[in-house]
Amino acid sequence: MRGVLAPVVTPFDRALAPDVRRLIEHCQWLLANRCGLAVFGTNSEANSLATTERMQVLDALVAAGIEPEHMMPGVGTCAFPETVELTRHALAHGVGGVLMLPPFYYKGVSDEGLYRSYAEIIERVGDDRLRIYLYHFPQMSAVPLGVELVGRLLEDFPGIVVGMKDSSGELANLERVLNAFPDFAVFAGTEMLLLANMRLGGAGCISATANINPGAIAKLFAAWQSATADDAQEDLDIVRNVVQRNPLVAALKTTIAHFRADPEWNRLRPPLTELGEEEHGRLVAELDAIGFSMGQF
Amino acid sequence: MRGVLAPVVTPFDRALAPDVRRLIEHCQWLLANRCGLAVFGTNSEANSLATTERMQVLDALVAAGIEPEHMMPGVGTCAFPETVELTRHALAHGVGGVLMLPPFYYKGVSDEGLYRSYAEIIERVGDDRLRIYLYHFPQMSAVPLGVELVGRLLEDFPGIVVGMKDSSGELANLERVLNAFPDFAVFAGTEMLLLANMRLGGAGCISATANINPGAIAKLFAAWQSATADDAQEDLDIVRNVVQRNPLVAALKTTIAHFRADPEWNRLRPPLTELGEEEHGRLVAELDAIGFSMGQF
Repeated sequence: MRGVLAPVVTPFDRALAPDVRRLIEHCQWLLANRCGLAVFGTNSEANSLATTERMQVLDALVAAGIEPEHMMPGVGTCAFPETVELTRHALAHGVGGVLMLPPFYYKGVSDEGLYRSYAEIIERVGDDRLRIYLYHFPQMSAVPLGVELVGRLLEDFPGIVVGMKDSSGELANLERVLNAFPDFAVFAGTEMLLLANMRLGGAGCISATANINPGAIAKLFAAWQSATADDAQEDLDIVRNVVQRNPLVAALKTTIAHFRADPEWNRLRPPLTELGEEEHGRLVAELDAIGFSMGQF
Repeated sequence: MRGVLAPVVTPFDRALAPDVRRLIEHCQWLLANRCGLAVFGTNSEANSLATTERMQVLDALVAAGIEPEHMMPGVGTCAFPETVELTRHALAHGVGGVLMLPPFYYKGVSDEGLYRSYAEIIERVGDDRLRIYLYHFPQMSAVPLGVELVGRLLEDFPGIVVGMKDSSGELANLERVLNAFPDFAVFAGTEMLLLANMRLGGAGCISATANINPGAIAKLFAAWQSATADDAQEDLDIVRNVVQRNPLVAALKTTIAHFRADPEWNRLRPPLTELGEEEHGRLVAELDAIGFSMGQF
């Protein structure tokens, strides 16, 4: 997989159940804007969903005609039996790949332990169609995936461990990984590093803000070698900087609720919370001030 | 609940499935040594077990005659529907209480978000028999439970939120919590703070090393007001200090495997790993050097 993917935000109904109708609409809009679907990512509040809920939602998306080959569902949980179950389920639908967090409860674990986690899952899934994108997000998981571990996995599972989402936000880490493994499909975790990542030989980005600004981000991906790429990157950064001043998932839902004129979008599962009234007002005002729009629905 | 509880280590078979027979034996031995059973805690590798596995194991323990009123199963997960399911299941068995981690994937969440998490679970469980012990373990969960949050939960859910396991290892935090809420059932997360906690008005301890040294720890709990309590605390500390030089779960399993002469005990689920040969040898030698024994089985 290559390109721009959105870690698709998950709308919830009044009972805090996934709102499948709104989610389908949002996925269709993202695809129309040339974004792939990293459903069940951090910004999807996937870690607040039960394993069974994730599978039911994926079933519903596929049943609605969303093409699985454009999907990279998140499947990494703390317990390998659940990761295996989610991965098998996703593969049965024919997804393009899966995004796999390491088990993230135990901290300070060894590379050997993380290696065994991935190896155990790969062996138990036992499916040649498996394409794993490792998910490195030390600030949130508190379980980093270092270059040595990645190298060992790549060596032992070629064609299975094929890429990585690097959400560290560190350009130096993108460089380190791509220098070590030039053919590895490395996605930056923010579009602010999209151009830099492409110039290093990366595969694209999987970014929260692709939920609200997919068209412009996908356009930069398509034209990253053009003369205007740096200007396009600057334009993306302006939007991102406004949004990321806030707790990210809440800011995305506020933005979607505002531009779709649909307050139902503005609901999060605990432990995340919606923006307060003042933050909400300031975000909308700042987006207006930079002339931001989500375009057509 | 009061006293000494062990976060019961979970033995695994060759296929890395919970080894129920060995677990039952271990639970019976702990009970015979006057220890309660905090099954599915951090040291139980509970976060490496699927939700369904936890329920099956609890069913098996109860079916084997282990009395549920001595159990405080861990039920806290990242996703409230799963915590609700585990809690209902445990209550249906008549457990004495449940130990509840906050949702621990998202970091830097607000007290409001954590409050809503617990409130949502309590309302959905909807059972007057519910007795929640909050689980504060900032070093592992990376989601601390502060005194203000505890106070708000105590005020809004009296008789439901009844206690806490404080695994911070900070005496100052035990003092802070017990000064603010003298009737709260606060368990220290290590027996090294057992005597100090009892003198502050605490309820006991829930400690990893109770898996291997239950009798002596339970004896100090029973006799904490005696003249020899400080000496008994020192004796406990000697054992704890030897063990906690190592990764804790691996050290406990090594110790049990050694003293039971049963190498099957020495198996962990990834991402945790067993001790290396050298660490294993050193731990056993150090335990021998202090004259440690697990007594009769």
